[in-house]
Amino acid sequence: MSITIVGSVAFDTLHSHEGTRERILGGSAVYAGIAASNYAPSSIIGVVGKDFPNDYLDLLKSRKINIQDIQVLEGKTFHWTGSYLEDLNKAKTISTEIGVLGNFHPALTRDTSNSCFLFLANNDPDILLEAIHQSRCKYIALDTMNLWIETKRDLLLQALQYADIFFINDGEIRLLKDNMNIIKTSAWMFENFQNLKYLIVKKGEYGATIFGRKPDEYFTIGAYPLHLVKDPTGAGDTFAGSFLGYICKKGSFDWATMKEALLVGTVNASFTVEEFGLDKLLSISVNDIEKRMDLLKKYSTL
Amino acid sequence: MSITIVGSVAFDTLHSHEGTRERILGGSAVYAGIAASNYAPSSIIGVVGKDFPNDYLDLLKSRKINIQDIQVLEGKTFHWTGSYLEDLNKAKTISTEIGVLGNFHPALTRDTSNSCFLFLANNDPDILLEAIHQSRCKYIALDTMNLWIETKRDLLLQALQYADIFFINDGEIRLLKDNMNIIKTSAWMFENFQNLKYLIVKKGEYGATIFGRKPDEYFTIGAYPLHLVKDPTGAGDTFAGSFLGYICKKGSFDWATMKEALLVGTVNASFTVEEFGLDKLLSISVNDIEKRMDLLKKYSTL
Repeated sequence: MSITIVGSVAFDTLHSHEGTRERILGGSAVYAGIAASNYAPSSIIGVVGKDFPNDYLDLLKSRKINIQDIQVLEGKTFHWTGSYLEDLNKAKTISTEIGVLGNFHPALTRDTSNSCFLFLANNDPDILLEAIHQSRCKYIALDTMNLWIETKRDLLLQALQYADIFFINDGEIRLLKDNMNIIKTSAWMFENFQNLKYLIVKKGEYGATIFGRKPDEYFTIGAYPLHLVKDPTGAGDTFAGSFLGYICKKGSFDWATMKEALLVGTVNASFTVEEFGLDKLLSISVNDIEKRMDLLKKYSTL
Repeated sequence: MSITIVGSVAFDTLHSHEGTRERILGGSAVYAGIAASNYAPSSIIGVVGKDFPNDYLDLLKSRKINIQDIQVLEGKTFHWTGSYLEDLNKAKTISTEIGVLGNFHPALTRDTSNSCFLFLANNDPDILLEAIHQSRCKYIALDTMNLWIETKRDLLLQALQYADIFFINDGEIRLLKDNMNIIKTSAWMFENFQNLKYLIVKKGEYGATIFGRKPDEYFTIGAYPLHLVKDPTGAGDTFAGSFLGYICKKGSFDWATMKEALLVGTVNASFTVEEFGLDKLLSISVNDIEKRMDLLKKYSTL
């Protein structure tokens, strides 16, 4: 079972109180694919410019990620510059060089349209729908951000009609409907999106919560306690990638598996934020992840 | 085993999106005492004016609360007017009529100075120290707020040297030391406050976390999921009162009891915020609390 990931492959320039990194490997599809790779193979559907280093592509390949559908176009790779100097919990965009991503249209092949999961990382809802209409994947998972809720709400809600799993940030879910709290919004979502099976609310340092369709399907877990967060970039995509990878590996879509996947996603994201970019995520072993999962379980058990 | 509570007995006027209540019974000692009353008897050390209704005093008496040390002075009862219209998570003070509370000096009697717990609800650090110096209680628990951290930090830290248990809000603990995250601040606290056994961080809708002195003594729990919060006033004091009441009832100060007490405090506070003032807290039974505890346990267990 594998995952098809539609998202960005990018250069990131990052500023936090712990330092600065320039033009390092980033992008939602990259974080999600690498995080998934400990559990399941994935394919990335994305685009880069001619300036994208082969080393980066090799790195992805070395993590069981199929990169055949990463288009390499004349022009520059998407480059995001962000700062966490004002608020570690909220990225401030300093600049966005859109480059070849501006003309990106996802093209799913026979293989990638038949994966277990189609994961649509945060993207313009037009792109989400383009990918959705090509998909014959068993399940569709979707992430988004405030920008699209505010500027393309109708199209986003249209795409959400196809989602089996929806990931969203705590601060953003309130924008979806009348600034309601997450408990009320989850009820509204299950009423209005008939395909939706599970809603996952990511809360950063406060952990994550998953809602299922049944009234008692509610599970919440705190974040893994960290002394220092250096760079939160990619935490949400790490969360989603490892969450979906774990489900693929288990081959199960039941509630017990979802709760375990929430633990998996929370712990994987805790590694990502400890160092800049992918540094920590690339350096850990499955054993490191399992150790932290055992601890977090202990920290959450009466 | 009983609790001696030093705190305010007050009138509250409250504004939230769910309505307005005028001059209803409030005050930190009142919430804490009533919340504790399901588990242990308590005594309130406080002050009211001649305008304070006998009905309110009778209500406290009916909850096994010893009110003999509530001084009734010539003048007006402390009256706080607050609003949650801008932000449900953060009370905005509209007005404070200090009344007789301005001349309050806690006087512990032979009985109240020998309780199992002395709970010092949020108060001027000068008052905290006055009470502490009279105390022969087995354990001292203390709560505070941003105002005192910002205006009387040295005196507050002095009072903290005597605390066995310290309750603090998530937003306020960061003010204690260099804006560090709560994990780092907890390490700093156990290093610098030798008497401190347990640190409890209250996170509102995100639940609560308790730290013990040993490195693996860390436990976090999400809040009980509520569709509607009407009035958060008194949630923190409800939390502390029921937390300490539960420990008194168990007669144990070990880590397992602390984790259970965190669940007790979280659930009790979830009732308080569902209605204005004490309405909900006064209407529930021990059975209601236990039902919600079972559910929250389930919502937190893999």
